[in-house]
Amino acid sequence: MKAEIIAVGSELLTPDRLDTNSLFLTAELNGIGIEVVRKTIAGDDRDLLSAVFREALGRVELIIASGGLGPTQDDLTRETVAELLGRKLKRNDAILHYIESRFRSLGREMPELNVRQAMVPEGAEILENPRGTAPGLWLEDAGHIIVLLPGPPRELKPLFRDQVLPRLERRASGVRLYQREIRVTGLGESHVEQRILPIYQRYPEVTTTILAAPGETQIHLRIWTDDPSHAKKTLDEIVQGFEIALSDRIFSEDGRSLEEVVAEELTLNNATIAAAESCTGGLLAQRLTSIAGSSSYFLGGVVCYSNELKTIWADVPPEMILAKGAVSAEVAVALAEGIRRRVGSTLGVGITGVAGPGGGSEEKPVGTVHVAISHAGGVKERGMRFPGERENIRWQASQAALDLVRVHFLYNAQNGTKSSTKKA
Amino acid sequence: MKAEIIAVGSELLTPDRLDTNSLFLTAELNGIGIEVVRKTIAGDDRDLLSAVFREALGRVELIIASGGLGPTQDDLTRETVAELLGRKLKRNDAILHYIESRFRSLGREMPELNVRQAMVPEGAEILENPRGTAPGLWLEDAGHIIVLLPGPPRELKPLFRDQVLPRLERRASGVRLYQREIRVTGLGESHVEQRILPIYQRYPEVTTTILAAPGETQIHLRIWTDDPSHAKKTLDEIVQGFEIALSDRIFSEDGRSLEEVVAEELTLNNATIAAAESCTGGLLAQRLTSIAGSSSYFLGGVVCYSNELKTIWADVPPEMILAKGAVSAEVAVALAEGIRRRVGSTLGVGITGVAGPGGGSEEKPVGTVHVAISHAGGVKERGMRFPGERENIRWQASQAALDLVRVHFLYNAQNGTKSSTKKA
Repeated sequence: MKAEIIAVGSELLTPDRLDTNSLFLTAELNGIGIEVVRKTIAGDDRDLLSAVFREALGRVELIIASGGLGPTQDDLTRETVAELLGRKLKRNDAILHYIESRFRSLGREMPELNVRQAMVPEGAEILENPRGTAPGLWLEDAGHIIVLLPGPPRELKPLFRDQVLPRLERRASGVRLYQREIRVTGLGESHVEQRILPIYQRYPEVTTTILAAPGETQIHLRIWTDDPSHAKKTLDEIVQGFEIALSDRIFSEDGRSLEEVVAEELTLNNATIAAAESCTGGLLAQRLTSIAGSSSYFLGGVVCYSNELKTIWADVPPEMILAKGAVSAEVAVALAEGIRRRVGSTLGVGITGVAGPGGGSEEKPVGTVHVAISHAGGVKERGMRFPGERENIRWQASQAALDLVRVHFLYNAQNGTKSSTKKA
Repeated sequence: MKAEIIAVGSELLTPDRLDTNSLFLTAELNGIGIEVVRKTIAGDDRDLLSAVFREALGRVELIIASGGLGPTQDDLTRETVAELLGRKLKRNDAILHYIESRFRSLGREMPELNVRQAMVPEGAEILENPRGTAPGLWLEDAGHIIVLLPGPPRELKPLFRDQVLPRLERRASGVRLYQREIRVTGLGESHVEQRILPIYQRYPEVTTTILAAPGETQIHLRIWTDDPSHAKKTLDEIVQGFEIALSDRIFSEDGRSLEEVVAEELTLNNATIAAAESCTGGLLAQRLTSIAGSSSYFLGGVVCYSNELKTIWADVPPEMILAKGAVSAEVAVALAEGIRRRVGSTLGVGITGVAGPGGGSEEKPVGTVHVAISHAGGVKERGMRFPGERENIRWQASQAALDLVRVHFLYNAQNGTKSSTKKA
């Protein structure tokens, strides 16, 4: 089956916004053997939008559209598609009650405008949207399937996974896309390429894409086949080659983020953690606590921007700051040790650096960062210099600190199995 | 003049790659009064590609295409467009020599493949590409302009600016795009719509788009006109109407983020700030310190996830936590007061809540958040219940806390002028 994706919204035709839903949708569709052959981005204009849908209906069996289901005047997808298919729009009382109750549970009155979101084209199946007011819609017409989804990614994604995917799976063929995502940190894109090129070149049927992301390099492997065991065997072979070539620089083989990997290690090892951050300003704490259940391992952290607070909150000796500077290996270690002792956690992490754009010197230019980890057996520290802007430097610093924690568990795991960050 | 953008390349139909050239192209085109009415992403397939160009020719005067000009078999843009327009492809020796000399200067022989890049449709103007081997092409046909550009952004951008823009400018009318972006917090999309609908409806020549973003609502106003003073007058009138309708819920009229607005207020008022966060886990500190120069107003913060650390770091009385619960108005206020006193900052902010997915109760379900601000003149607290998931709840909580700080300055500004968050 072939599909086209239509992203609706005038804001997606401005210089400020990009349709990103289509990446998610493409991945999900590919996973069940459906190829995306075209993507179109159209504005909130009835005639133009109608033409986009009409043309797509002339080309493919499946159309997935996102956006334009909101309550406002410029949300036209519902009306346009209904008109194009010659279906009447009818008010669905179940949806209306659901929307009303949603507003009520938040202690608010439903604005009159939202009634539009309860209008449904005749014959459409309703795809419930537990995260928003606009339901999705599934329409079939003359051998075509048209799926209308809300635009906000946090609504679109679960709705698609829970309700669209199972419906599509029943109709799809046996050819599937099999893929792996390997994530690497502490090695640049071209170094990764250099190490793995001789491996993946031997598998021309597998598409290998190497992508640079902030603080990490991602390797995507993709193979289309109707033979699951062939896919598994081939991908396993390549990944085993990568493991030899990249060693402990691989932190994830299933798309998990570095904070997810670290969170899992902390949990598996019954360990707790605390952080004393300077240049990252809370980014490390924020990443560690972005994961559900983080209160079981993250006890607390301090953001000690000023030198005084480094001393007050993490016992960094003022003489040390005076002698070595706030951005130094010594202060990173003192922060890690101080916060660990103060909080009583298994691990303590310290970060100090120059995020810029100001504050750099010849000796310690913008991008200079020291991260340290303290544990019962001692301390470990890494000094680095990152390129780029403030945002990138802060991200890379948090990435380096998380990686210190990951590597600590890789070689000091208490849970018997050497490590869980690498899955077979 | 209206334009469509076509991005060519099968890699742009995978889950890993997004066409980003179109953002640059849209900004440049809008700047000379050309509106982008559709974007299409097509794969490297001759028939599909041919259809994309044919359809676009039926709709608009100007087509800007990127990609598919490389030397390999799957680069089909040149051939497809030539065939569609009924033009022969001819080898251009000047281009061939240029490509050969480029390879020679890198000490390499030109691969035979690259001869394809010297093939030019009859009547095409050549747009030199000093950063790559594939030149751009400018074709005119029956009142249409088709511009073919190389895909890599570092080649496309200078080529477009130096050679395409001047050619287009000569033909463009005086019509330009003028726009404003108003950002609102603490009011949902449909409530914003309801309040401002009567205002913007009076200006049919202005396109108004209302977008829901996490913790805020954005209103985009766009007007195309050849009269700059008319544009300014019209947009000013609408924005003044919005100011009356939305009052202090508007936090920015120039696209600035809430943390940027708060950072500016802190700086203008020579104020400093410290934060004691629970459920946001450092997100507030991270947002406040994401801005260059934040060390002048952000002194420090604590992430006190555990009850014990709430007491140790921010003097929250254990009896209070026992009596009222860690998630309560009282604890939010105590956190704000405690951290302000401990750090000695002008302002203290406290945040406590249930980010979920666990930890909710009937009385305090997931999404319950209390934020508080403490200042020399007293305290202010807000209790809220946010819908959605952990990430969204944390973001909204940080947004509510920043908004408390913004509103504090709005009514207690020390710098004479009532406030700078609203610019005339």
